[in-house]
Amino acid sequence: MRLVLIAAALIATAAPAQRAPVPVDPFIGTGGEGHTFPGAVAPFGMVQLSPDTDTRCVIRDCYGHAAGYRYDDPTIEGFSHTHFSGAGHSDLGDILVAPVSGDDVPLEAGTPERPGYRSPYRKASEQARPGYYAVTLDRPGVRAELTAGRRIGVHRYRFPAGKAAHLVVDLRSSLYNYPGKVLWSGLRVRPGGTLTGFRETRGWAPGRKLFFAMRFSQPLTGHALLNRESDVPYKGFQGPGRGSDQVAERLGRALVARLDFGTLDRPLEVKVALSGVDEQGALANLASEAGNFDAIRARTSDHWAKALGVLDVAAPPAVRTNFYTALYHAMLAPSVWGDADGRYRGPDDQVHRADGFTYRSTFSLWDTFRALHPLLTLTQPERVNAEIVQSLIASRAASLDGILPVWQFHGRETWTMIGYHAAPVIADAYLKGIRGFDAQAALDAMVASASYAPYGGLGEYMARGYVPIDREPEAASKTVEYAYDDWTIARMAAAMGRPDVASTFAKRAGNWRNSFDVRTGFLRARKADGSWREPFDPTAINYGSDYTEGNAWQYSWFVPHDQAELFRQMGGNARVIAKLDRMFEFDNSTVDYSHAEDIAGLIGQYIHGNEPSHHVAYLYSYAGAPWRTQERLKQIVESQYRATPDGLSGNDDLGQMSAWFVFTALGFYPVAPGSNEYVLGRPFVDRATLNLPSGKQFTVTAEGLSDTNRYVAQVRLNGRPLPRGFIRHDEVMAGGTLAFTMAAQPNRRWATTPAERPFSASVAAAR
Amino acid sequence: MRLVLIAAALIATAAPAQRAPVPVDPFIGTGGEGHTFPGAVAPFGMVQLSPDTDTRCVIRDCYGHAAGYRYDDPTIEGFSHTHFSGAGHSDLGDILVAPVSGDDVPLEAGTPERPGYRSPYRKASEQARPGYYAVTLDRPGVRAELTAGRRIGVHRYRFPAGKAAHLVVDLRSSLYNYPGKVLWSGLRVRPGGTLTGFRETRGWAPGRKLFFAMRFSQPLTGHALLNRESDVPYKGFQGPGRGSDQVAERLGRALVARLDFGTLDRPLEVKVALSGVDEQGALANLASEAGNFDAIRARTSDHWAKALGVLDVAAPPAVRTNFYTALYHAMLAPSVWGDADGRYRGPDDQVHRADGFTYRSTFSLWDTFRALHPLLTLTQPERVNAEIVQSLIASRAASLDGILPVWQFHGRETWTMIGYHAAPVIADAYLKGIRGFDAQAALDAMVASASYAPYGGLGEYMARGYVPIDREPEAASKTVEYAYDDWTIARMAAAMGRPDVASTFAKRAGNWRNSFDVRTGFLRARKADGSWREPFDPTAINYGSDYTEGNAWQYSWFVPHDQAELFRQMGGNARVIAKLDRMFEFDNSTVDYSHAEDIAGLIGQYIHGNEPSHHVAYLYSYAGAPWRTQERLKQIVESQYRATPDGLSGNDDLGQMSAWFVFTALGFYPVAPGSNEYVLGRPFVDRATLNLPSGKQFTVTAEGLSDTNRYVAQVRLNGRPLPRGFIRHDEVMAGGTLAFTMAAQPNRRWATTPAERPFSASVAAAR
Repeated sequence: MRLVLIAAALIATAAPAQRAPVPVDPFIGTGGEGHTFPGAVAPFGMVQLSPDTDTRCVIRDCYGHAAGYRYDDPTIEGFSHTHFSGAGHSDLGDILVAPVSGDDVPLEAGTPERPGYRSPYRKASEQARPGYYAVTLDRPGVRAELTAGRRIGVHRYRFPAGKAAHLVVDLRSSLYNYPGKVLWSGLRVRPGGTLTGFRETRGWAPGRKLFFAMRFSQPLTGHALLNRESDVPYKGFQGPGRGSDQVAERLGRALVARLDFGTLDRPLEVKVALSGVDEQGALANLASEAGNFDAIRARTSDHWAKALGVLDVAAPPAVRTNFYTALYHAMLAPSVWGDADGRYRGPDDQVHRADGFTYRSTFSLWDTFRALHPLLTLTQPERVNAEIVQSLIASRAASLDGILPVWQFHGRETWTMIGYHAAPVIADAYLKGIRGFDAQAALDAMVASASYAPYGGLGEYMARGYVPIDREPEAASKTVEYAYDDWTIARMAAAMGRPDVASTFAKRAGNWRNSFDVRTGFLRARKADGSWREPFDPTAINYGSDYTEGNAWQYSWFVPHDQAELFRQMGGNARVIAKLDRMFEFDNSTVDYSHAEDIAGLIGQYIHGNEPSHHVAYLYSYAGAPWRTQERLKQIVESQYRATPDGLSGNDDLGQMSAWFVFTALGFYPVAPGSNEYVLGRPFVDRATLNLPSGKQFTVTAEGLSDTNRYVAQVRLNGRPLPRGFIRHDEVMAGGTLAFTMAAQPNRRWATTPAERPFSASVAAAR
Repeated sequence: MRLVLIAAALIATAAPAQRAPVPVDPFIGTGGEGHTFPGAVAPFGMVQLSPDTDTRCVIRDCYGHAAGYRYDDPTIEGFSHTHFSGAGHSDLGDILVAPVSGDDVPLEAGTPERPGYRSPYRKASEQARPGYYAVTLDRPGVRAELTAGRRIGVHRYRFPAGKAAHLVVDLRSSLYNYPGKVLWSGLRVRPGGTLTGFRETRGWAPGRKLFFAMRFSQPLTGHALLNRESDVPYKGFQGPGRGSDQVAERLGRALVARLDFGTLDRPLEVKVALSGVDEQGALANLASEAGNFDAIRARTSDHWAKALGVLDVAAPPAVRTNFYTALYHAMLAPSVWGDADGRYRGPDDQVHRADGFTYRSTFSLWDTFRALHPLLTLTQPERVNAEIVQSLIASRAASLDGILPVWQFHGRETWTMIGYHAAPVIADAYLKGIRGFDAQAALDAMVASASYAPYGGLGEYMARGYVPIDREPEAASKTVEYAYDDWTIARMAAAMGRPDVASTFAKRAGNWRNSFDVRTGFLRARKADGSWREPFDPTAINYGSDYTEGNAWQYSWFVPHDQAELFRQMGGNARVIAKLDRMFEFDNSTVDYSHAEDIAGLIGQYIHGNEPSHHVAYLYSYAGAPWRTQERLKQIVESQYRATPDGLSGNDDLGQMSAWFVFTALGFYPVAPGSNEYVLGRPFVDRATLNLPSGKQFTVTAEGLSDTNRYVAQVRLNGRPLPRGFIRHDEVMAGGTLAFTMAAQPNRRWATTPAERPFSASVAAAR
């Protein structure tokens, strides 16, 4: 609750240089398992400068600290420059900086009980808003403030009067750390006192390289560069200054720097740029963003105001905070990875140059193809989407396997999760009219990704029409996700006038049937001999099982491109509705999912904390019962989203959880990206205006919306009744008003006929 | 002896495509402790493709295998692409390739007793000539041939008929290896079958990066990329092809590749390019040198013929072989390090671009400032020297310490040995009229290097006029070498019209006196309080002692720029001559230098196998007894240089030992680079013509030279008697004939007066 008050206070006290026009609370999701971070970041910025409260975990124990920060942790180790927003797995936490005052400068973080440079802090001293974070570190007595630009982070430290000011820069610190993770690292004090360096790590991304340049507003009065490795069999020859640690360069696998500034009569500002290319790239990135802390903070605040201003929303305070925080969290990834000069390190670990676009990375595609990318297609159509697609195409060109990204960050592929979901991202953008990329190269990349036999059982899938579970794990999930991805390829190929490709992939789009067991009514894994794998337990969730982070309950609904045929195979709409109800009302007393990290936010077997369920509440509408969708959405929104640190029911997953909320709050959701249709749910805001790049506005209103008026009585589009349970993308882009009238009782007649149900028009095209 | 016959045979059988106009025997120095390699290399080429006979040693045991090959080893592990020629310490041996035939493909080298991919071979099957090496590997039954271009190496393997052909590429193999040396490495099979990869090592050069691209003349029919690490705590997610090792990319710290080609009906050619920049650089370097094995071999053979043709020499066969082999060994370093597009990785580990020159590295400056660089100044004045100096200046610009290279290879500084001997290299080039560089930047770099307090006790040296041994090891050697380097800076500054700099450094040039103990007549280490360090034993040799790889006997003669004053302090010429005799005739029966790797080639306390002695035989001439120099030179040449694998008495040290021989055989030697004077010794060749870039020729003749006619009776320059015991550089460059008349009895009157003695003219300038 306190945090909501802080957010509200921001609005009241907003000064021009630090205006916060909308109530964003970056602490939402920093408790529980939201895995967001509270630190400073620019929209889609390369640098996520944020406090790390605990990095002592080792790999599998790290889940709760995937973003480095947990709201309830009592101490802060320091501030590092890279964080994922809401990832389930993790890495990053690069280049930790910690202020230390006085003569004793500890070079180890220590523990909360025996702190080294780590410091306790009071929660009340914390402030967070888009592009700004502040906290008072009690141990050094330092007020610490953070802001960030496009490729830079800026620290400002107010040291206590009369005490020597120091910084510790610790290249050993990392998220999801373990002995041996740092492959090699370097620290270099350059003429003029700029600190540069690099780190190569063997983490989630194999062999990831990150370079940095760090400039100080006050002169360095001394420094020590140390290597804390104890087991180096060969140390080589020692350079100048061998008797001291005040060397110009130190290389090793356990580096830490002590930087001395003497006593200061003004705050110390530390400007840090990152680069994936080299230290020169970091220096150039540093030079490319002028200004001191206040100037950069004001600039980033403006950028956030503009970015968040794409939607003007009227809603009750908690909903409004949730809404804008979700919108904020949906504008962090895919983040900038290319340097100011266009160079970037790609999936082949080589340096390339982006020609006319900014290379972006951090693609959590299994999560974000669902709602995040469709949201960006609406809110950031040209600035972001063409660049995202261009980055995907460029990534494919530099892929040794010749395929599009799967789960990529900092330019490196991690091979996490399944599918080739860059395909729906690209197809959705193309079909919605985005053209800032080479469509032919994009289609080639999509076809190549869908045809690469060594990837995820694709060879078997192409030969048999399904992925056999005795040849490839998670076969059932792969089969249905491939089939959907194939459909998006067919849709784009058809739109491009490539009937050959369209025909091939339209046929593949039906492959989900090969894994659907009509007898049990569930998606199931099939063996190479055609038999179903036994035993079958639709509630079982295990890594590497028949399903990906889920079970038959969640995955049996994944045919977003052909729900009608799925429902027919399930026995018709009545059975579908009953089955959906069984799912939401399932008694979980006999199951235990504590072993599965990502299974959170359970409503029966509906698991909102993970993505496979995200479209399921909208399926009642496909079955002709939109009022049931309306009921379930209220149930989900109220139980899974709160404006508190632990308010997210599961990992935000680089904005997917948040994008779900933004769409759902607006009253429509992209169940099948690539269809150009949004299923109507029910709004959770009184009024929202989407400011389109054309200058037009698309406004959603919810007349009579209240806790009791939870049903849609009728819908009007531009004043005319809309009998359909969906709207088309072109209707949104044309501007206008989508007016919901809310009521306490369901309208059981609206949007119930086949023609009125979602996605009716394009179903035929899929078969 | 057999090798001389091979060399002679080469001449007789030389065909146009493989002409060997001069008898070079690359096996000379591959036995004993010469540390040369027999493999294929182009003049100053980036790639030294050569067999490694044993890489199983661990660091300090590796001395004998510093170049990877020992002539007497019974097996060959494979062929790697980088080697030092004659280094004392080592590293490299990058990217080992071994051919394997048949179905069983071992991925470990094994031991000579239990070979894996290692193979026995017969010495008679070996051939080596400039740019070409061949051997028959008995285990796979493969005839292996190697050649090299500027940035490429080319292998040609003839596999036995009907047996499957494979290559093993082992990124674990290294010279001076140890567990943990490979920091990270990668192998990537690119579309089309090109193998690329990289290796980062923590060896002599800290954090050295090397990239490669490898193209095959026959299609890859299969491959396996394996990581043999056993102790990886976190393996991350697995990419496409997880069930097989036929993956497109493998990263790790213990990589080995198996490459399959099926049965071949023609030889397999493997073209490999290196780059210090990135894999794209390696691919571009690969593309920049067209042609198959035979074409590249012919081209490199032409380059060698041209390079070695700078000197036309008539001499007895063994002398001629020694001479041209020495000239060959003097044209390997500083080797090309920059890519074809000009980019290179510099001392700051960052990628730079050379503007208008080729960046070179492998600077063994403590060794090579003495005779190698002066030889290159004569034989490669514009093509090499300006580039060398430009590379030195560029290296300084990218030095975090702001100083010139000390012992640099692959762009990285190793901080090995002492002094700032890039200064005499640059000054010597400048004073000899080479101008293809920015002289002001060069002088700035020299002054900066000589003024950088943290380096090697320079702060103390500048404050006290000597390096105090209680503050800095090897203080006596450092003091005298700094003083000499200072003199070269003064000389160049004076020539550039910078009397301020000249005056400062001319004063510093006299600092050797502060470390010379007139009482004992030896150079000694002095403590900060001004006292001499006790006890004093002029025969003691220990690492980190008062001297660098030597003792007071060798180091007390190192005042090349002011021998006259040194001799005065030693008590006059008669005492000097007696002392030199004591040195050469010292009874070593009571000393043991087996602990000191580089102490080899002992004639009393004269140690020809290491550099501090190299000018000493010429000092008799300074003392007015040139006939004694003539005697000592004969003694040294006959005992220290033989045309056999173990024919070099010590490490060739990147060509310094060889350059000493070339100069000495020609009858003159640059005792004091920077003086523009060469001290006359006595020729060991009947006639030699130096083809100058101007088209002029400078010819040395030795009339009557024989084993008994070992003294110089008289010298004529261009037909006129030359009373001096030295010649000037401009006299050489003007072309003409330096005619020695040899006799059985010494001429005790020639070149004995002060004015006739070496270096008389510039002595005054030094004080």
